[in-house]
Amino acid sequence: MLVETSPSATRREVRTARQQGLSIGCVPTMGALHAGHVSLIDAARQQCDFVVATIFVNPTQFGPGEDFLKYPRTLDADLEMCRVAGANLVFTPPVTAMYADSAQTIVRVTKLAQVLEGAHRPGHFDGVSTVVTKLFNTTEPDRAYFGQKDYQQQLIIRQMAADLDQPVEIVTCPIIREPDGLAMSSRNRYLSPHDRQLASRIFQALKLAEQLAAESPLPPTEIAWAMTNHLNSVDGIAVQYAVIADPVTLEPLADRSDSAVALIAAKIGATRLIDNQILRFR
Amino acid sequence: MLVETSPSATRREVRTARQQGLSIGCVPTMGALHAGHVSLIDAARQQCDFVVATIFVNPTQFGPGEDFLKYPRTLDADLEMCRVAGANLVFTPPVTAMYADSAQTIVRVTKLAQVLEGAHRPGHFDGVSTVVTKLFNTTEPDRAYFGQKDYQQQLIIRQMAADLDQPVEIVTCPIIREPDGLAMSSRNRYLSPHDRQLASRIFQALKLAEQLAAESPLPPTEIAWAMTNHLNSVDGIAVQYAVIADPVTLEPLADRSDSAVALIAAKIGATRLIDNQILRFR
Repeated sequence: MLVETSPSATRREVRTARQQGLSIGCVPTMGALHAGHVSLIDAARQQCDFVVATIFVNPTQFGPGEDFLKYPRTLDADLEMCRVAGANLVFTPPVTAMYADSAQTIVRVTKLAQVLEGAHRPGHFDGVSTVVTKLFNTTEPDRAYFGQKDYQQQLIIRQMAADLDQPVEIVTCPIIREPDGLAMSSRNRYLSPHDRQLASRIFQALKLAEQLAAESPLPPTEIAWAMTNHLNSVDGIAVQYAVIADPVTLEPLADRSDSAVALIAAKIGATRLIDNQILRFR
Repeated sequence: MLVETSPSATRREVRTARQQGLSIGCVPTMGALHAGHVSLIDAARQQCDFVVATIFVNPTQFGPGEDFLKYPRTLDADLEMCRVAGANLVFTPPVTAMYADSAQTIVRVTKLAQVLEGAHRPGHFDGVSTVVTKLFNTTEPDRAYFGQKDYQQQLIIRQMAADLDQPVEIVTCPIIREPDGLAMSSRNRYLSPHDRQLASRIFQALKLAEQLAAESPLPPTEIAWAMTNHLNSVDGIAVQYAVIADPVTLEPLADRSDSAVALIAAKIGATRLIDNQILRFR
């Protein structure tokens, strides 16, 4: 497995692979890898000949007061996981290789990025869409892999790729969960044992929504209310949003329709977690 | 010469050329071609094996009240000029092929795009950087060619390409002028015979600045004042700006330094023209 820190060396390696007729898969990550990331590398390995994982804790997608400085950095373990998972190349640049002091260009998805995570984390998605564009331009992949756990993010990246004619197919992979249902996240390691127990209520709330959609005649607003109630019924969980939305536009859903997505953001102690679940109405 | 209206067909043709080992040059234009555009195609032909010209009057870079609807559209003549100049492929998409109704992504260069043209034409450079990114993603060029006539534009595109790691070299080609010095522009055809005569004063003002920089000890602010005076000394010219700026940052230059650029925007009747000249101080 190759490990590169320079964008130009990375592009050179990828182009060499392409000249050999290999198709390219890219798995962008911020490191602190877990089984969710490994499932993305697995998917890329199944569909592509040459898999590039990127590891970069991107400062521009963290707001003031967010966890950029304490975000877990576990490079040695990450590289070992990439190697075992079968990545061909890991691109792990320093911040200075990604952002010159003179840098002043952003890629902005407007409408989709203004709601939910975008409303709670101003500027977050500008940072995401800009860095993902840079990673696409450096690794020139045929396909790129994102987890459904960041539901709004994968929608925004699909929108961006389509709007800008980026020559890449976006593949969204299923959420990987702990045995009690908690969605895998690099931020789970922030949780105290007590908070870790509480965190499973997020999954329980989503399962409740799934059940109410499938088995009751309740409208989406009532289902969202039930999710919120389930989260609020214990101390230590602060709900930021718990909504039922259109799965493509993310607009709040007033009436039962063909499909929907339930989305939750909640703080468990100091740790902010997100999760989601596609719903089918009966 | 191939002519394509579809982005996917264009990408396919370019990739076929690349698979044959050919290097790709791209010349983005809005049509209404003149000798300035031909010089860009010539430069591309000298440096690249396969030259793609694009012809697209991009609505998103025109503001309300600007000349999008009346902008000259001369496709048959343009295609003939591309053919004679030796382009291998012309990509000339309809607006609907470039912008879906759902499109909501912009590429924004911030600082450089806020001054001069950016201040006089709000949103203009968002439209330019977004469409150029789309054209780069569709034609995947090794090099792309822009005219120095749009000085700020080529700076912004260089900044964007560097900031976003776009794998393309930006080449800026010299201004092509009429015998009396007027910079070639698709908008020159708007000028009445009387306004056409007045328009040469823009070039005269730039030559005056060049001479004062080379031969006098005047500071940049005084030279800018002399340019403005020359333009204002006849009726029918409305100066929008006439400045001496740093050639890289476009910040106004207070003191004589190694190099500078003189930039002018002026309305001659209803026609807005821009021009510029690199200065060397004695």
